[in-house]
Amino acid sequence: MAGNTFGQIFKVTTWGESHGKALGVIVDGCPPGLPLGESDIQQDLDRRRPQSTPSSTPRKEPDQVQLLSGTFEGVTTGTPISLLIHNKDADSESYDSIKDLFRPGHGDFTYQKKYGIRDYRGGGRASGRETAARVAAGAIARKLLDREHISVKAYTLELAGVRAEKMAMDVIDKNPFLTPDLDAADKMREKIMEIKNAGDSAGGVVEVLVQGCPAGLGEPVFDKLDAELAKAVMSIGAVKAVEIGVGLAAARLLGSECNDEITPEGFVTNRSGGILAGISNGDEIVVRAAVKPISSIEKEQRTVDVNMKPTTISVKGRHDVSAVPRIVPVCEAMVRLVIADHFLRQRTLG
Amino acid sequence: MAGNTFGQIFKVTTWGESHGKALGVIVDGCPPGLPLGESDIQQDLDRRRPQSTPSSTPRKEPDQVQLLSGTFEGVTTGTPISLLIHNKDADSESYDSIKDLFRPGHGDFTYQKKYGIRDYRGGGRASGRETAARVAAGAIARKLLDREHISVKAYTLELAGVRAEKMAMDVIDKNPFLTPDLDAADKMREKIMEIKNAGDSAGGVVEVLVQGCPAGLGEPVFDKLDAELAKAVMSIGAVKAVEIGVGLAAARLLGSECNDEITPEGFVTNRSGGILAGISNGDEIVVRAAVKPISSIEKEQRTVDVNMKPTTISVKGRHDVSAVPRIVPVCEAMVRLVIADHFLRQRTLG
Amino acid sequence: MAGNTFGQIFKVTTWGESHGKALGVIVDGCPPGLPLGESDIQQDLDRRRPQSTPSSTPRKEPDQVQLLSGTFEGVTTGTPISLLIHNKDADSESYDSIKDLFRPGHGDFTYQKKYGIRDYRGGGRASGRETAARVAAGAIARKLLDREHISVKAYTLELAGVRAEKMAMDVIDKNPFLTPDLDAADKMREKIMEIKNAGDSAGGVVEVLVQGCPAGLGEPVFDKLDAELAKAVMSIGAVKAVEIGVGLAAARLLGSECNDEITPEGFVTNRSGGILAGISNGDEIVVRAAVKPISSIEKEQRTVDVNMKPTTISVKGRHDVSAVPRIVPVCEAMVRLVIADHFLRQRTLG
Amino acid sequence: MAGNTFGQIFKVTTWGESHGKALGVIVDGCPPGLPLGESDIQQDLDRRRPQSTPSSTPRKEPDQVQLLSGTFEGVTTGTPISLLIHNKDADSESYDSIKDLFRPGHGDFTYQKKYGIRDYRGGGRASGRETAARVAAGAIARKLLDREHISVKAYTLELAGVRAEKMAMDVIDKNPFLTPDLDAADKMREKIMEIKNAGDSAGGVVEVLVQGCPAGLGEPVFDKLDAELAKAVMSIGAVKAVEIGVGLAAARLLGSECNDEITPEGFVTNRSGGILAGISNGDEIVVRAAVKPISSIEKEQRTVDVNMKPTTISVKGRHDVSAVPRIVPVCEAMVRLVIADHFLRQRTLG
Repeated sequence: MAGNTFGQIFKVTTWGESHGKALGVIVDGCPPGLPLGESDIQQDLDRRRPQSTPSSTPRKEPDQVQLLSGTFEGVTTGTPISLLIHNKDADSESYDSIKDLFRPGHGDFTYQKKYGIRDYRGGGRASGRETAARVAAGAIARKLLDREHISVKAYTLELAGVRAEKMAMDVIDKNPFLTPDLDAADKMREKIMEIKNAGDSAGGVVEVLVQGCPAGLGEPVFDKLDAELAKAVMSIGAVKAVEIGVGLAAARLLGSECNDEITPEGFVTNRSGGILAGISNGDEIVVRAAVKPISSIEKEQRTVDVNMKPTTISVKGRHDVSAVPRIVPVCEAMVRLVIADHFLRQRTLG
Repeated sequence: MAGNTFGQIFKVTTWGESHGKALGVIVDGCPPGLPLGESDIQQDLDRRRPQSTPSSTPRKEPDQVQLLSGTFEGVTTGTPISLLIHNKDADSESYDSIKDLFRPGHGDFTYQKKYGIRDYRGGGRASGRETAARVAAGAIARKLLDREHISVKAYTLELAGVRAEKMAMDVIDKNPFLTPDLDAADKMREKIMEIKNAGDSAGGVVEVLVQGCPAGLGEPVFDKLDAELAKAVMSIGAVKAVEIGVGLAAARLLGSECNDEITPEGFVTNRSGGILAGISNGDEIVVRAAVKPISSIEKEQRTVDVNMKPTTISVKGRHDVSAVPRIVPVCEAMVRLVIADHFLRQRTLG
Repeated sequence: MAGNTFGQIFKVTTWGESHGKALGVIVDGCPPGLPLGESDIQQDLDRRRPQSTPSSTPRKEPDQVQLLSGTFEGVTTGTPISLLIHNKDADSESYDSIKDLFRPGHGDFTYQKKYGIRDYRGGGRASGRETAARVAAGAIARKLLDREHISVKAYTLELAGVRAEKMAMDVIDKNPFLTPDLDAADKMREKIMEIKNAGDSAGGVVEVLVQGCPAGLGEPVFDKLDAELAKAVMSIGAVKAVEIGVGLAAARLLGSECNDEITPEGFVTNRSGGILAGISNGDEIVVRAAVKPISSIEKEQRTVDVNMKPTTISVKGRHDVSAVPRIVPVCEAMVRLVIADHFLRQRTLG
Repeated sequence: MAGNTFGQIFKVTTWGESHGKALGVIVDGCPPGLPLGESDIQQDLDRRRPQSTPSSTPRKEPDQVQLLSGTFEGVTTGTPISLLIHNKDADSESYDSIKDLFRPGHGDFTYQKKYGIRDYRGGGRASGRETAARVAAGAIARKLLDREHISVKAYTLELAGVRAEKMAMDVIDKNPFLTPDLDAADKMREKIMEIKNAGDSAGGVVEVLVQGCPAGLGEPVFDKLDAELAKAVMSIGAVKAVEIGVGLAAARLLGSECNDEITPEGFVTNRSGGILAGISNGDEIVVRAAVKPISSIEKEQRTVDVNMKPTTISVKGRHDVSAVPRIVPVCEAMVRLVIADHFLRQRTLG
């Protein structure tokens, strides 16, 4: 109800503020019998950490996860799995300057309006740091999907206007932008450095590819698989648009250009992005998210303080130039959560 | 769980197949004390009916709604509101030809895979006809939003590649394409006729504008207002992409171009589409949906029958050329449901 | 949220007031492939109707059910099943006398306090008539449980102080009190007549027996099978206590008297009522509900009107002396709903 | 879905096994602005700890709670509140003897059947230790109810056959049995010692009294306040029966004896236990729970091992003789959760 839970059966609840003592997640409804240890989760968390790249900041977040419940002798038991990550690098004082200020593009204003109170330190609950808990939950979903031979892979399709042209999946984790095109990665680096020097920030597009998903997942009417994916991905802070398959382009295609013809060998094309009438058709599922540029920039912007008095803000220091590479594993995690949940929902038809 | 319910507090459950005896909706959680009669709902249903336009079919659907519970002496009582619409024009036999066939772009294949059985007549539960129930529920949400002086208005922004340039809200209901630009409407008519003659179909873009929404609606993390809107709109059959505010364009803007500066008079721009960190900021909320072309076309397409034997299909007769004008009131209804639900959710903070 | 929905996966939503146009129920989440027709449901509704007995009234309620969606060619399709029962015998005028009065023991006062408005005719939503919708839903659950060879049987264990001593299951439907002991039925008839003549009413105890339930149903902690059964049964209007297995007597037993020892042949006794730590153990599940006497009595009682002015009330005419026989099929239906729901929930562990 | 969450708006999710690293609870949906610190919660946890009494064991559980999120500067912020309690005294090895055994009266058998795997140490998730998390959550609910001047008080009404005759609320926390009658406490001590010496265990009755609850709480039909209370209380491990108001006795009263007449001064009696048609009537709410004797006893009992081979069990050492005093604060917590949740649900009518 209060918005911190995702999923109906594979149910994920995250908690924690950016500069509180800790953050964490409960995964309830994970089937018993899956092998699971802290290292399974740590590996995904490590991928989320900023790498040495001009697009992200050097903030040290060891993000050491603790697995506190729900497994016995290395295997899930069907009871709630509790994961905890202590906040180590929480320098609250550095946020005193924004205590009485509403930063443009951030949730400062809306949280204050909603709750009448807010933990302003590092954005509190609205911080991107919350997504560490999602990635941790996504690692558990991965164990379930692995068992079912379903793979979910996200990558940077576009960053700062530079689009990946090649689809070399094996290089994704070999460049700091998590893009499948190393040439594009070079151009991204250049472009990002340029924007950084201008005191500005950049957006991009993340694409997620699901392979091996059986036909039949997704529920009719409101909980269509694409509707759930749209919610999942749009729930990530900086995302402003979600596309399935051909996406926005569908608006300008003719029916004969948009339909996927069917032959005994399968669908001839995949404009639908693997989903028909809200239910997976067995083909690859393709989801894209448009990510806005980071809101904290060095360039001076007009804003108001909590008393609605005008002022300006210029955010200096260790802020990412683009959230895109960090959002890649979060998108991947969210899509995994949707697929895992619908995989289990499908079981209830039996 | 089975996907036929939307909302947490203002809870809407639709039921019914295209060619069953009837279809309907239960609205549970509507506050007591709202004036409500059948005519309030009928008026929205009538707007959904196909008008005399080349983009839609002449099928007669009187869609006479019956209000069966939840009101007393013309006022809501807080108990579930049940609305029923009988199916009048259900000519099942005309669907015998698709009984054993999977139509490209339709849910025939995926419903069969999911359930092992399907009501093939007119698409069964996956039919666009189901949206009549959503529109009916949306009319009830309208009564609540009216009380709160929140207005939700949808219109055709683009159809068959023709984009509305003017924003004359008062002409929307005066043209069959429900677009705010009468010049564009003329071009749309031309373009649609051309596509119809070619035996093909067209897509477009629907935009929804919410005015008067107070700041503070939406929940953090997973149930962000934009995430819920994305799900709501993507749950409409033919929608393949959802944008909030600047949407997809955000990916190519700089931070300084994308942020909305704040002054004592309010936000200087509205690139965010009225939502910051998932919570309404008091500005206009702007949502766009990209709609794919109708899947049923006269042009011959390859497909398979239920035994996966190859065949072809050419859909003749009374099919819409574009779903866009019919989807306009459905988008409007879905956005109303989201706003009504989050308005009531906000009450629980008290 | 508003309390009209029961179940997580096998999800039942009832609607309708006692003297509205109709009442009904949506069953969402019923698996596909179950044979289901109107007669399956009618048969359970007919059992709920008052028989020729001094304990119930002669009000004619044909309760003819209409099956409006969710089946195709006589089989469930996995989409929502909508059932409708028109209200035929709704003589609203006869309720004008209670329009401005709060009847003792009824919900008049509390509904007014909760909603600020109420449909006073026949108790509106709080009427026992609402349970017809539950019984209809229970009939659908029965079809699922039949497939799994799980049987649920309810009967009158005690009425007006007369307790059944024999457990002849085959006579339950052969006497108007739905008790498994025909000798007790005779005494019940006598006792009820006596109370009727005194212008008073009587309570009793309903017992429900579940046979063939596999071990493993029920969820840990909050959604224990016994907790869900307690809620299900306590949600029936007149029920004031719920017992599982030895029930209240457990408070005075010693551990050695209360535990069920286990042998290779199974549990030696069944004091637990078939549930251990909230999960079914494969033994018979035993639930009992204590039913208070009907609140509407001829004997004069003090009460107040809607302006809190003192007055008296004496309810004459066609009111039941005891709700017990009518509650028997409702208890049976509610227990079926719980078992069906948990049966499907168990599937999600796979 | 998996049963570890309670409540719709004031939403409580517990996690953790008896002998895992820690246990805890997330409270999501708590309104912002409530003063809350660790000491508020610790105080309730301390009350739950076994006191020096023959009915409970000397196991040292410091149960030091950590408040990890959801507050800022000592006040709730509306975001999820995470509480953590580390398990200190977890001597797993002492449970090796029950590793391959199903203890009578315990969940060993049913958890194994349900999940195919179980953390046998100390009962794992089915341990009474889980209730520490409930009590912690209840302390947060208490802060909300305090603000609304609603008090919830539980006590031992009966233990080992000894019933409290006096209702001296101020002595409840001054005796180890948490009973409002010090004379009864003396007799309880005697009786408990006797049963302990016989190697057996005892049950009893807990009563919960809610004062200051406004009229109007509870939802019609399925989520009646009494139905929710029944579920809440029955979800506590050892509870076998739940009564509201006159409870079981209602079955043998006449209508004229059971109804509460109404005068301008209020209800003349309170047989209903403060709830009419599932909605609070403003009077005191009275709930009773019958608690079975502790299942672990020294007396030898027959049982089977995991291979269904016959054996016997005699539990020696530090086991409680009765769970009743420990269940008192758990009942109190559960009732608080129900009232807090329905208090917030009532807000959605606005």
